[in-house]
Amino acid sequence: MNADSKLPSFSDWTAQIQQRTEVALAGVLPDPAVAPQRLHEAMRYAVLDGGKRVRPLLAHAAGALAGAAAEDLDRIACAVELIHAYSLVHDDLPCMDDDVLRRGKPTVHVEFDEATALLAGDALQTLAFQVLAERPLGADPANQLAMLNQLAVASGSRGMAGGQAIDLAAVGKRLGREELEFMHIHKTGALIRAAVLLGARAGGALAADELERLDHYAKVVGLLFQVVDDLLDAEADTATLGKTAGKDADNDKPTYVSLLGLVDARRLAEEMLDDARASLRPFGARALRLEQLADYIVHRAF
Amino acid sequence: MNADSKLPSFSDWTAQIQQRTEVALAGVLPDPAVAPQRLHEAMRYAVLDGGKRVRPLLAHAAGALAGAAAEDLDRIACAVELIHAYSLVHDDLPCMDDDVLRRGKPTVHVEFDEATALLAGDALQTLAFQVLAERPLGADPANQLAMLNQLAVASGSRGMAGGQAIDLAAVGKRLGREELEFMHIHKTGALIRAAVLLGARAGGALAADELERLDHYAKVVGLLFQVVDDLLDAEADTATLGKTAGKDADNDKPTYVSLLGLVDARRLAEEMLDDARASLRPFGARALRLEQLADYIVHRAF
Repeated sequence: MNADSKLPSFSDWTAQIQQRTEVALAGVLPDPAVAPQRLHEAMRYAVLDGGKRVRPLLAHAAGALAGAAAEDLDRIACAVELIHAYSLVHDDLPCMDDDVLRRGKPTVHVEFDEATALLAGDALQTLAFQVLAERPLGADPANQLAMLNQLAVASGSRGMAGGQAIDLAAVGKRLGREELEFMHIHKTGALIRAAVLLGARAGGALAADELERLDHYAKVVGLLFQVVDDLLDAEADTATLGKTAGKDADNDKPTYVSLLGLVDARRLAEEMLDDARASLRPFGARALRLEQLADYIVHRAF
Repeated sequence: MNADSKLPSFSDWTAQIQQRTEVALAGVLPDPAVAPQRLHEAMRYAVLDGGKRVRPLLAHAAGALAGAAAEDLDRIACAVELIHAYSLVHDDLPCMDDDVLRRGKPTVHVEFDEATALLAGDALQTLAFQVLAERPLGADPANQLAMLNQLAVASGSRGMAGGQAIDLAAVGKRLGREELEFMHIHKTGALIRAAVLLGARAGGALAADELERLDHYAKVVGLLFQVVDDLLDAEADTATLGKTAGKDADNDKPTYVSLLGLVDARRLAEEMLDDARASLRPFGARALRLEQLADYIVHRAF
């Protein structure tokens, strides 16, 4: 037996990270027995027991590569997942996408009410920053502040929230590929990139060229995620997706599929996957999970 | 001439802090010429050129007492004001208070649209945390992390956002004074308290008993602010208030006035003012601005 034979399979590894992320999230979310109970129930409903936890998986994979402590990565995983969850709750509201189904369950404003969904999203965002600030992450508080700043930049008007605004403005318009990319780099890419970089930052300092490679990987994977989402939306039926499918076309939203067609969008996804893999190569076996995650993101459904 | 004769009057001092807060806010808010422009315009519309900046005034007054650098206090003032502004934007939305007028101007969702108001509020909250994280505040990054955590706790589900949820649940109900207080301690009190304590924290360490006194002052003033708001809402007409008056009664929301009547609510405000003053006494002249602010909060309109 060699060391490698003890390495869990990818699916065992993902299950293990998903499980510990669930436990960590349940621990940082407020107790539903504490007032205001309904708000706390809505926050837990929005976050727990759902999603593939792609961002936590990326944070753990990048953090392990950089030698970060698993407990610190749990907190980073929680922070990025809480930001992601808040964005979904607000994105589903009637004044945004007006969606009634998410992860196979009624959306928060359907299960509770609009005002509660609004406040639950607000409080989930706050909690993300609290989770990163409330106890030491690593030995250097200045590094921790830099992580907080990075999460804020990735989430705010020049990151995720800005991407949603660009998305709104794009409905019914014909976008070129560059404009579509600009939107997705913000809407989905920024937070995925933050998940990778915060994970890496929690470990020992990587060399500048290593960080650059990880950043390239993170940017490609962030965009790749959206290309695949567009493909899934065009191809899958509602049951498989767990959310209302075909909505992009219904809403006359520009997508990689509407822009390139199914075949070329698929080819683009494979090319980007190659690009992501290439940027990991110098890390060798240390980058195994990141490589597997890129592959998983592309091939999760086709 | 002695040193005291150089001390600006209260109204000169407030004008000066309001002015520098306006400049600081304009500096941290995203450039409206940068994409997404409409979102950035909405964020600036929601924050600039409005409000009495009570929280920034409190942060500067407490910070000056603790010997904090004015530039650090500007950033703290921005952070608490951005949280306050985001909460107003979301609170005015149709699914919450459905208000069309704020600070004498159309509310953000009226001037722009609901989705933009939702995203602008979201991005203002993010920006508040970014402003506290993006550059050093004082010499101790661990102290800065504690400030970030304090702002998050004050803003989240067990602070301001939680208070709004309790407020929503209270519509049409008969609350006792303790329940009403519990709501306001969260909804308005938590952020006002954070403004004072973050300001104090930015300075040299105060003695434990001094911090305790400041905290008591902050708690009393936070609640006092709401008692006076209830009085103003019951008494003022829409023109004076710059927002739709009498809405609390229209909405059948419990208030100090509906609970105690006008006369006793006024008496309560005066008693609380005495309490706030008493907690400042040991600071002597260093607490002048905090004392003047408490007085200003109570007597701003009656």
